Amino acid sequence: MSEGKPPLTEDELNARHAEKMAKKKQARDKILATKTIEKGLLIVHTGKGKGKSTAAFGLVFRALGNGMKVAIVQFVKGKWETGERKALERFSDEVTISAMGDGFTWETQDRQRDIAAAKAAWERAKALIMDETHDMVVLDELNIVLRYDYLDIAEVLEALAKKPEMKHVVITGRNAKDELIEAADLVTEMTMIKHPFRSGVKAQKGIEW
Amino acid sequence: MSEGKPPLTEDELNARHAEKMAKKKQARDKILATKTIEKGLLIVHTGKGKGKSTAAFGLVFRALGNGMKVAIVQFVKGKWETGERKALERFSDEVTISAMGDGFTWETQDRQRDIAAAKAAWERAKALIMDETHDMVVLDELNIVLRYDYLDIAEVLEALAKKPEMKHVVITGRNAKDELIEAADLVTEMTMIKHPFRSGVKAQKGIEW
Repeated sequence: MSEGKPPLTEDELNARHAEKMAKKKQARDKILATKTIEKGLLIVHTGKGKGKSTAAFGLVFRALGNGMKVAIVQFVKGKWETGERKALERFSDEVTISAMGDGFTWETQDRQRDIAAAKAAWERAKALIMDETHDMVVLDELNIVLRYDYLDIAEVLEALAKKPEMKHVVITGRNAKDELIEAADLVTEMTMIKHPFRSGVKAQKGIEW
Repeated sequence: MSEGKPPLTEDELNARHAEKMAKKKQARDKILATKTIEKGLLIVHTGKGKGKSTAAFGLVFRALGNGMKVAIVQFVKGKWETGERKALERFSDEVTISAMGDGFTWETQDRQRDIAAAKAAWERAKALIMDETHDMVVLDELNIVLRYDYLDIAEVLEALAKKPEMKHVVITGRNAKDELIEAADLVTEMTMIKHPFRSGVKAQKGIEW
């Protein structure tokens, strides 16, 4: 900007804004016109921040609101409890929840039991991925199970590759495997910038559960 | 790791795992014991990735499932549509939605109208932040409005500082102001790792709306 110019008047600001936004709209419309493919997406929410399962939960309700059928498989117990379950009760005809996890790994401390639970959950997940009933399948915390190598990533990818074309699959959990990110259509990393734990605030109703 | 050692047997792996997880649990329980404060949180979802509004939407349903009352103010029109609205209809006694935005800024191209819409939405938001009726208030895409300086960040922070102690306020939108991040209890940045637009996939029912 050159010096000495008087500041813009409101009218000038408005005109400049209109021009800038018209250009933005034009660019955006042009981009949107090229997006014509419809397909079921493989979506991954990973990272250390909050919101991975919560955003998956938001997708579930958005899909339910659109009359789609949704299935949720929980690979770790103690999540999707209370609030989520009660809210989902109002959609009991359209949603299926399978809580297959047998406790957080640091709660059970039993590797063999965790592996057995993971394998059982995966069998259920595979059936839901392949069926023609559900439009969306959420595999909550599958990444944790993959990270501990309780399931074989190659086997998981093989099943995902065979899913019905329009089915959306949402996978959550930190430490998503590179191979999964590679295979996914949409990957978001939730990064923790600030956490209330640091100020001594405990997990609360409506926020964590 | 020293070379030449034989690989661990399954029994050894299990024992090592149990020990490691027991330590993790101990550390976690110790930390949790220090978290005793309950308070209404100021939560910010920002970043360029997807999931900011979707995770807020997930929080809304979690709160509704817990019997809490929720209010949503949309600062930008064209979001929280179809799926969200239909899903929220099943909770019409517990949720209030105010769609105050008057179109995306690049749709309207009218700065004065956008400013007027932002100010009207903010008046509504202020009333909802201060009332004793709602347990959670979502200010969807407030960050966009703040970024364009359609609202004064100082005025917004002043109102947030006066909110009832137990009220949760969730603010979404990219480019959150530093002052807002500073004031917040919980900030998550959604980072885009991979987006289906890149492969020509269009916005789809149940995912984007």
